Parts: sequence; C-alpha cells; structure tokens
Amino acid sequence: MESYLYAVGVAAAIAIVFAIVRFSGIMKKDAGDSAMQEISKQVQDGAAAFLRAEYKWLTVFVIVVATAIALSSAENGLGTKTAIAFVAGAFASGLAGYFGMHTATRAAVRTTQGARTSLTEGLSVAFSSGIVMGMSVVGLALGGVVIFTLLYAAGEGFSSASLNHVLGFSFGASSIALFSRVGGGIFTKAADVGADLVGKVEAGIPEDDPRNPGTIADNVGDNVGDVAGMGADLFESYVGSIIATMILGAFAYANQENMEGMVILPLCVAGFGILASMVGTFFVKAKDEAGISAALHFGVTVASVIAIAGSAVFCLAVLSFPAGVVGWKLLVAIAAGTIIGILIGKVTEHYTGTEGKPVQNIAKQSGTGAATNIIHGLATGMESVAAPVLLIAVAILLSYEMAGVYGVAIAAVGMLSTLGITLGVDAYGPVADNAGGLSEMAGLPEEVRNRTDALDAVGNTTAAIGKGFAIGSAALTALALFSAYCSRAGELAVKAGLMEAPTDGTNASIALDINSTNVMVGLLIGGILPFLFSAMTMRAVGNAANAMVEEIRRQFREIPGIMDGTAKPDAARCVKISTDGSLKQMVLPDLLAVLAPIVMGFWSVYALGGMLAGALVTGIMMAIFMANAGGAWDNAKKFIEGGAHGGKGSDSHKAAVVGDTVGDPFKDTSGPSLNILIKLMTVVSVVFLPWFA
Amino acid sequence: MESYLYAVGVAAAIAIVFAIVRFSGIMKKDAGDSAMQEISKQVQDGAAAFLRAEYKWLTVFVIVVATAIALSSAENGLGTKTAIAFVAGAFASGLAGYFGMHTATRAAVRTTQGARTSLTEGLSVAFSSGIVMGMSVVGLALGGVVIFTLLYAAGEGFSSASLNHVLGFSFGASSIALFSRVGGGIFTKAADVGADLVGKVEAGIPEDDPRNPGTIADNVGDNVGDVAGMGADLFESYVGSIIATMILGAFAYANQENMEGMVILPLCVAGFGILASMVGTFFVKAKDEAGISAALHFGVTVASVIAIAGSAVFCLAVLSFPAGVVGWKLLVAIAAGTIIGILIGKVTEHYTGTEGKPVQNIAKQSGTGAATNIIHGLATGMESVAAPVLLIAVAILLSYEMAGVYGVAIAAVGMLSTLGITLGVDAYGPVADNAGGLSEMAGLPEEVRNRTDALDAVGNTTAAIGKGFAIGSAALTALALFSAYCSRAGELAVKAGLMEAPTDGTNASIALDINSTNVMVGLLIGGILPFLFSAMTMRAVGNAANAMVEEIRRQFREIPGIMDGTAKPDAARCVKISTDGSLKQMVLPDLLAVLAPIVMGFWSVYALGGMLAGALVTGIMMAIFMANAGGAWDNAKKFIEGGAHGGKGSDSHKAAVVGDTVGDPFKDTSGPSLNILIKLMTVVSVVFLPWFA
Repeated sequence: MESYLYAVGVAAAIAIVFAIVRFSGIMKKDAGDSAMQEISKQVQDGAAAFLRAEYKWLTVFVIVVATAIALSSAENGLGTKTAIAFVAGAFASGLAGYFGMHTATRAAVRTTQGARTSLTEGLSVAFSSGIVMGMSVVGLALGGVVIFTLLYAAGEGFSSASLNHVLGFSFGASSIALFSRVGGGIFTKAADVGADLVGKVEAGIPEDDPRNPGTIADNVGDNVGDVAGMGADLFESYVGSIIATMILGAFAYANQENMEGMVILPLCVAGFGILASMVGTFFVKAKDEAGISAALHFGVTVASVIAIAGSAVFCLAVLSFPAGVVGWKLLVAIAAGTIIGILIGKVTEHYTGTEGKPVQNIAKQSGTGAATNIIHGLATGMESVAAPVLLIAVAILLSYEMAGVYGVAIAAVGMLSTLGITLGVDAYGPVADNAGGLSEMAGLPEEVRNRTDALDAVGNTTAAIGKGFAIGSAALTALALFSAYCSRAGELAVKAGLMEAPTDGTNASIALDINSTNVMVGLLIGGILPFLFSAMTMRAVGNAANAMVEEIRRQFREIPGIMDGTAKPDAARCVKISTDGSLKQMVLPDLLAVLAPIVMGFWSVYALGGMLAGALVTGIMMAIFMANAGGAWDNAKKFIEGGAHGGKGSDSHKAAVVGDTVGDPFKDTSGPSLNILIKLMTVVSVVFLPWFA
Repeated sequence: MESYLYAVGVAAAIAIVFAIVRFSGIMKKDAGDSAMQEISKQVQDGAAAFLRAEYKWLTVFVIVVATAIALSSAENGLGTKTAIAFVAGAFASGLAGYFGMHTATRAAVRTTQGARTSLTEGLSVAFSSGIVMGMSVVGLALGGVVIFTLLYAAGEGFSSASLNHVLGFSFGASSIALFSRVGGGIFTKAADVGADLVGKVEAGIPEDDPRNPGTIADNVGDNVGDVAGMGADLFESYVGSIIATMILGAFAYANQENMEGMVILPLCVAGFGILASMVGTFFVKAKDEAGISAALHFGVTVASVIAIAGSAVFCLAVLSFPAGVVGWKLLVAIAAGTIIGILIGKVTEHYTGTEGKPVQNIAKQSGTGAATNIIHGLATGMESVAAPVLLIAVAILLSYEMAGVYGVAIAAVGMLSTLGITLGVDAYGPVADNAGGLSEMAGLPEEVRNRTDALDAVGNTTAAIGKGFAIGSAALTALALFSAYCSRAGELAVKAGLMEAPTDGTNASIALDINSTNVMVGLLIGGILPFLFSAMTMRAVGNAANAMVEEIRRQFREIPGIMDGTAKPDAARCVKISTDGSLKQMVLPDLLAVLAPIVMGFWSVYALGGMLAGALVTGIMMAIFMANAGGAWDNAKKFIEGGAHGGKGSDSHKAAVVGDTVGDPFKDTSGPSLNILIKLMTVVSVVFLPWFA
C-alpha cells in the first residue's frame, strides 16, 4: 500500500522538476531591450514587494492559528501534528504562489520579446509560464498530502484523528488562499481603478502609459490577483478535495477489508493526472491567431482523456476495493467530474464570450445608456447561475448514484485531476495581458502589439473559463468537505455518547434536518455571509482605490515633469500604497470567514452544519453571478471597442465603460473571494470539530 | 368552539363595513375642479382597464388549476372542496385588490383637493384610502378562512385532509398575488421607464407633464403595483400564515384534549388584530409636515400594543390548550413576531432613508460617476441583508423555544396581526404620490404642490418600510408553510406505509437531511430559482418598456400639436400597450413559479423540500438585497436633488439617476416578486402533496 503512496510522491516530484525545467527554459529566452527590461523589473519588484508584505501578515496569522491548534488536545485530531501540517500547507501554497508569480513576471517581458519574432514564440513563452504555475501547484500540493499521509495516517490505519492531522495541511493552504485571493483581489482592482481614474479620466492619458505612476501597480495587480490568487485558490481546492475524499473513504468503509483502496484512490487519480497534464502540454501548438484558443483547449482535452484512461486502470485493474464497491462505478464518478468541469467552462464561455448572444445583447443595451447596460448585465449574471449549478447537480446525482457520498467527493478529485494543465491555461492569461501592457509601455511597433493583443484576447476568455472552473471545483470541494464534516461530527458524537453507533459496525453521520430550528437558523445565517462578505470586499476595493487616487494625484502635483516625460513617476510608492491599503482592507472580511464557523460551532454543531450549507448555496450562486456579470460587461465593452454600436468613444462605449468598471470588483475581487469563503469555512469547521463536539 | 369562529367572522365583517364607511367618507370629499377630475378619470379608467385585462388572464389560470384540483382524488385533501376554496381565495383577493385600487384612484384627486385647504386634510384622505385597502384585505381574507374552516374543517375535527381543503383558499390568494405582484410590478416599471425615456430624455419635458402620453400609464402603475400588488402580496401572507398555523396546531397536538385551542388561536389573534388596527387608525393625526411620519408610526404602535394585549387575553384567560402548552409562552411567540416586524421596518428605514449614512454615502460616491454609485448601491443592498435576516433568525429561535414549530408559525401570525393598519400606512404612499402627480399635471399653485410633496416624501419612506415588512412576513409565512409541508408529508408517508408512525400516538414530520443527495440537490436547484426569476422579471421590464417607448415615439410623431398643447395624447392606448406587454412578459416567470415545485415533487418529495428551503434562503436574501439597494438609490438621488453634492443637474445627480433607474426594477418588480415566489412554491407544494406522496 505504501508503495502507491511513494509512486504518487514521485509523480508530485516530477511535476516540480517539470516546473523548474520549464522555468529555466523561459529564463534562457531573450528578455528584450533595456527599456523593456527596466519596466519588467519594476513589475517584478512590485509583485515581490506585495507578496513579501502579504506573507508578513500571513506569518502572524499562521503563528496565532498554529499555536491555537498545537495547544489543543491531540486526542481527536488537533495538537502539534496538525499544527505542523497546517504550517507546511501554508508554506507549500505560499511557495507555489511565489514561484508562479516570480516566473510570470519574468515571462511577460520574454513573451513580448518572443512576439517580436512570431506569434507562436510568444504563445510558447506565456503558456510555459502558466505551466510553471500549474505544475508547481499540483506538485507541491500533492507532495505535501503524500508526505503527511505517510507520516501521520498510513501507519494508523487512516483513523479519523490521523486524517484530521493531515487535514491541517489543507487548512494551511486555505489560509494562504484567503490572503492571496482576498488581499490580491482587492489590490488588483484598487490599482486598476485608481490608475484609470486619475490617468484616463483626469489626466487624459491612455491606459498603460508609462507616465502614469499607477501603471506598474496595475500590472503588478494582474500577477498578484490572477496568478498568485488563482493559484492559491485552486491549490486549496485540489488539496481539500483529495483529503476530504480520503476522510470519507476511511469513514464509509471503516473496518472493511481493502478500505485503503478507497483512501488512496484520490491520490492515485491526482498523481496520474499530473502525468496526463504534462503530456497534454506538448499538444499546445498554434500556427496563427485563430489557432491559439483551439490549441489550448486541445491540450486540456488530451490531458483529460489520458487522465480518465489512467483512472480506469486504477479503478478496474490496479487497486482493490472493499466488498460491494464496483470499480467502473468509481470510474464513472471520476469521469463525470472531469467532464462537467469542462462543460462548466463552456457555459462560462457562452455567457462571457464576445461571440455569444448575452454579451452582444448587453452591448446593444448600452445604446440606451449606462442604466440599461447595468440592468442587462445584472440580469445576465443572474441567469447564468442556472446552467453551471444544474451541471453541478447532475454531477452530484450521478456520482452519488455510483458511489454514495464518496462518489461525490471523488468526482471533485476527477474535476481537479488535470489541474496542472488547466491552471496552466488559466495563468497564461495574465502573462499575455502583461506582455501586451509591456509592448504598449515600451512603445514597440504596431505589428508586435497586434500579436500581443491576439494573445491577450484569448487570455481573457481562458481567464473567464478558469473562473468558472474555479467556482465549480470550489463548490464540489466544499461539498466533499461538508460531507466530511457531517461524518466526522457523527463519529465524535458517537464517541462522546451523544449519538448511538449503528449496530452493524459502520459509521453514522449526523443528520442535518432542515425542518429543525437550529439547522434552519444556521441555513439563514449562512445565507447572509456571502452577501455580507461581498459587500465588504466591494467596499474594500473602493477604499483602497481612494488611497491610490490620492497618491497618483500627489505625484502629478508634486513631481514636475512627469507629464512631459522629463521626470519619472515613483511607481514603487504606488505599489506600496496599494499594498498597504489592500492588506488593511482584507482584515475584516478575513476575520468574518475564519471566526463565523468557530463562533457558530460553539453554539451548535447542527447550526454550524446548516450555516455551511446556507453559505455553500448562496455562495455558489453569488460567485457565479458576479464572475459572469463582470466577464460579460468586460467583453461587452471590448465588443463595442471592436467597432459595434459606434465603437470607441461613442455613447454606447461610455455606457459600456460604466458596466466594465462595476464588473471589475465583481469578477476579480468579490466573486472569486467567495470560492475561498465557502471552502475555508468548511475546512475550519472540520478541523476544529473536536473543539465543539 | 364554533362560537369563537363566529366571533372572528364578525370581526372580519366589521373590517369590511369599516372599509366601506371609510370609502364613502372619501367619496363625499370634494374631487376638485374639472381639469383635476379629468386627469383623475384617466388614471381610474387606466387602472381599471389593467385589472380587467389581468383578471381575464387570471380567470383562465384559475379555471385550469381549479379543474386539475377538482379532478384529483378528495381522499387526501384535494378534490372539489379544495377547488371551491381555491376559486374563492382568488376571488376574495381579487375583490380586495379591485376595491382598494378603485378607492386609491379616487382618493388621490381628493387628497390633492384636500391639500389645497391644509396638510391635515390631505393626509386624512390619503390615509383613509390606505385603510380601505388594509381593512378590505384583512376582512375578506379572515372572513374567507373562517367560512371555509366552518364549512370543511370544524366538523371533521380539523383532520389533515380537511385543512388541506381550507388551504385551497390560500392557494387561490397566492395565484392573485402572483399575477398582481409580477404583472403589476412589470407594468409599473415599464410605464415609468418608458415615459421617462421618451419624455424626460428625448423630448426634454418634465416628469408628470400632461403632454407626455405615458404620464397617465405611469400614474396607473403606482396604483397597480404598489396598491393592488402589495395588497395581494400581504393578503397571501396573512392567509398563508394563519392556515399554516392551524395545520401545524392540528398536526402537532393531534388526538390531544383541547387541540382546538391551538387551531383557533391564530384566528383569534388575527380577529382581535383587526379591532386593534381600527382603534389605531384614530390615533393618526398630524398638525404639520414634521408630524406626518410620527403620526403614522404612532397609529401602528397603538394598534400593536392593543393587539398584543388582546393576544394576552386569549392566551392566558380565554382559550384552553393541550396539556403541556403554556399560555404565556405562546404570547411571547406572538409578541416576538409583532415586535420583530416593526424592527425590520426600522432597519429598512436605516438603509433606505435619506437621513441614514448608507444613502448619504451612495450620494457622495456619485461624485466619481455612475460606476461608483452602482458599486456602492449594490454593496449597500448586500450588506443590508444581514440585520433583517438575523432578526428573523432571532424570531425563529425565540418562538421555537416557546412553542416549537407551532411557535414559529404563530409568530408569523403575530407579525401580520395588525396588517389592517400596517398595510394602510403602506398603501397611503402611492395615493400621496399620485396626488403629487395630479397637482403637477393640473398646474396647481406651488403651495399646494409643496403640501403634496411633503405627503409624498413620507410616503416614500413608508413604502420602503412596507417592503421590508412584506419580505419579513413572507419569510416567516413561507417558513410556517414549509413546516406544514414537512408535517403533511410525514402524515401522508405514514399513511402510505413509507414511514413508521411514532409509537406514542403523535405525528412525525419527514426529516430533510441536508447531507443526503436529494435534499442537497434540491437545495441547490432551489437556490437557482430566485436568481433565474429575478433575471426574467428584470428583462421583462426592459421588454415591456420598449413597447411603451415605441408607442410614445409614434404618438409624438403622428399626432401633431401634442407638444404645443393643441392636441391631446392618447393616454389610454399607452396604458393598453403597457398592459398587454407586461401581462405577456409575466407568463414565463409565472410558469416557473408554479411548475418548478410540481415537476420536482414528482421526482422526490425530499428534493422538493430541499428546493423549497433553497429558494427560501436565497429568495429572502435576494428580495432584501434588491428592495433595499433600489430604495437606497432612489433616496440617494432625492438627497442630491435636495441640494447636496451639487444638486439637480450636477454630475453627481446624473450618476444618481443611473442608480435610480437600475434600482427601479430591483425594488418594484424583481425584489417584491420574490416574496410571491417563495410563498407560492410552498403553498403549491403543500396543496399538491397528495399527488406526489
């Protein structure tokens, strides 16, 4: 059995090696002329400065929480072991984020330089950078899970307490995700809005103009939010879904022969998925502009097919399962997850793509002003909730039919199995975006800018699809963790004599009857949280942007010669102001996410269960609503800029700009932050269950 | 026991008599000069034309559904008896709406005329009109419940099937509410937006200008949406909460001595509440502008105190309850409902009132453009969800602690017990609004217009508070109906041999375990519905408004002399276009509300339970979010118009107008329609349970 764990560990190690090889490949590329390098250096330094500041706050948080965990009784799964795994999870996710962003900020300038030669060359560098992020995440994540499983759980027969120690790793990853997604999300939009408001609106200079002191911060923001933030989000989903499945396997098949097969299956699926993702990356080759998107999708499809084939081998031939468990049924559950992850991406593309009716309709409605643009954007976002949630419902029903609660959890693992390449495609976007900004700032020839624009346009779509995927996987992961919560609570209740154990030797979950008051009240309070959290993060962007606006205005006022190019703006200071502002604004929503489940848990484990479900339901809806409304507004503006309804500068365009500005915090801050809220609250609840029970 | 029912019936009859007396009092007032009367006549005719068209659609709907009910087996509570109650419920609610609107359209012109003499005189007429609506609703509603209880249930020992027959009355009321709230909500905003777009924006004439062909339709809309729609909404809540409490009383205390006490308590509370409301109306007297709001609130407070005192008499002295039921605990539950209803109003006032920080902050943010106005309006709406839902949670916890599920239901009855006056205060708003429009259109002296403006300003706040109250009571009513669903499902499951009856002779509800797949999937699908429904209703407003825009444009083009006042616009045609458009647009969302629970029920009673809970949770949140965001935007615009941030015509004002326009369908169409969605789906589920079980 342990040999499987070692094999999975080797796959994880290969991923890390693969990432390093790709990284050094990128670094060998030409970094362009000195002007380009200088701008790039500023972005690199700014991004590193942000992460350093963020990690300082994180260190404090991690120390406080680790101490609380370490001081708790180890009997039911807390104590020093969990604390160590927690710190390791935070460290691993932070390292992946740091490395991914380090690469992305260096790859952007090389993408621009590559685009001077050809489109293919630019694509190759940008995609490589995405793959470094993707492979770092899956490698460090899976490696960590394997190590702690070997250290804590494998020797203890995967007991409930031992798996809770391992779950500490997931909780650590969640902490980073919270800080990266929320803090990074606030930073990226505050910098964007701040730079635009003073630069475009007040000073009348174009976007990405090097004279604007906020331009660098804006470019830093793309890396901070869309690379590091997105990476940490999916790191958390990946780890959370794997460990939740292990817990459910150990719980549902306790005391049965071959129970271990259920516990290591998610690890094997994830491990093979890494190899599949690596193979997939070699199929991403595009000759011309029209082929970029297809090339990226083809890579993902190849990886998915290989991953499912690999899962088939494990389910049907290699692993042994307890009596009554049918291998092909497990395979169907896994494949359902993988396929529905792709379908959710397609739905997102329909609602947010420039080619789709929804976006074109919003563009059309911009003709009667900003109000109709907003109303139709909001309506589109609300409508777009239905299809992805129905797909998730189908995945749940099908996978449950196949293998019960365990089936739902392993479907989440299936969805995330090809994360190495999916995240790669997604993290390609901000690199292409930055490359475009760089070619603009460095004043490169139009031909080059057209190439980087083509790369960027595809990046917008993959970013929107990536958001849909992130929400879908967050939903399934939260659901898997929710089931783990119910089962762990059942075990602890039996242990504490509060509930009777089933007479047939199996385990029993607690039942959360909606028609009981505590659960209903929990459901309602849980339903509030995504609304409150979104309100907080939206306000936070506004507040942090204000600080940025004041600083840019000050520089224009106090540094003479900025506008005529004789003096340089102090870009680093803008990054610092925005960093401080966004990290300060992050505290309140973060505290809400961490403390709400703990306070509720002390009152009632049932009410907490209800709260998790309520937050899950409204959280998924709000996340999809906001992400898709924001994406649709963005592309409605782009569609008009492409020449429709009067094109750039027309009244329709002005109305569309309002929608785009509203959509920015929707899609890049509040919406994605909800992924973290629903997952983190469930992880916190499972980890700290021993406190409440 | 039956003597109590007769007494309650007498209270209901007194309410109707009181309404008729007040109505004839209004009609005796001076209706102003011929110009005023002519305009008023157009509004009266338009409103009547809308209702007639709406009731035509309704008749078809009622016939189809009544036939389906009548043809079902009567054994478990459907059949002819239920069909008759259903038709009666639809008729009673329709009659109350018609009479209330008939009065309101006649009272407006008399309010204007009264305001020529004094503020007090204007207030008195407008408030009287509100009271006619309030008393018609409670009188016809409670009267209907008493009659069907006497006919169907009292002689049968309040059996489950007999109470389901009575619930038909509630379902009938729900059908009217669906058509009135959704159709009326679409009408009122389509007319408003259409008239404004062509009149204010294109032709450059002021609001309520008699040259605008859409002005009459706009004024009709206020009556249709805010009088008839709101009345039907609360009629449904009132009836639904009373019957749900009766069902739960009969279920939870089945086979116990004095069970009847539990069944008739809600009727007694409601009956005495009518008398309390009538007494309260005599305390509404204001000398000057500053006193109007206080006078209205004072009337409600007096009514609430008397209603609670009356409930105390019934709980502590008059009625007998089963062993173990403590009178003062029931009283606490009732009082909790009454008080929390008032507190929810206060919270709404905080978030939407011109004096509050939230509105003033939105006004301030309008300085940086429409986008920041929208972002902060959305954030305010999202944040405003927390306090009302927490208050509802407190009401649930407290009333459950007092008397279990029955306690929660009776708290809803307590909240609605003073509906006679609460609805009166609320329906005062649109009358004052119309009176203001009339004085504008008839070109009355500034002094008069100042008085009607003062009346109207208070009306805006009472309307916002009324919306909060409507949502709060809808939530508690839906919750009571949800409990009734679980208990009826339990009974039917036991009867069908699917579940074992408890051995101690009591009844058992079905348990809806969130951690089971059907319930979780139901929860997710239910969560989608409010988003989808809101998207549909928001789009519907846009589509119906387009038809209106085209018609107004056509009239300006084809009828020469409109602009210089030599020719009259064809206002009736605008009303017809808007009526047809909104009724057509209503069909799709209405079908969703009716069919979703039936389709789901045939699949699984558990999934349906989950769906109801999911829709309840996201429905409450979305309803509060949209109503309060809309109210806040509206008053932020008013605050700027009052002179802040540059006043009327400034850039801030232009930004605030965008927010107000987005808020219109939010607060007057989509938000309030959700009240109906969550209640109607639960009623449909309970009524048609025999089909599924």
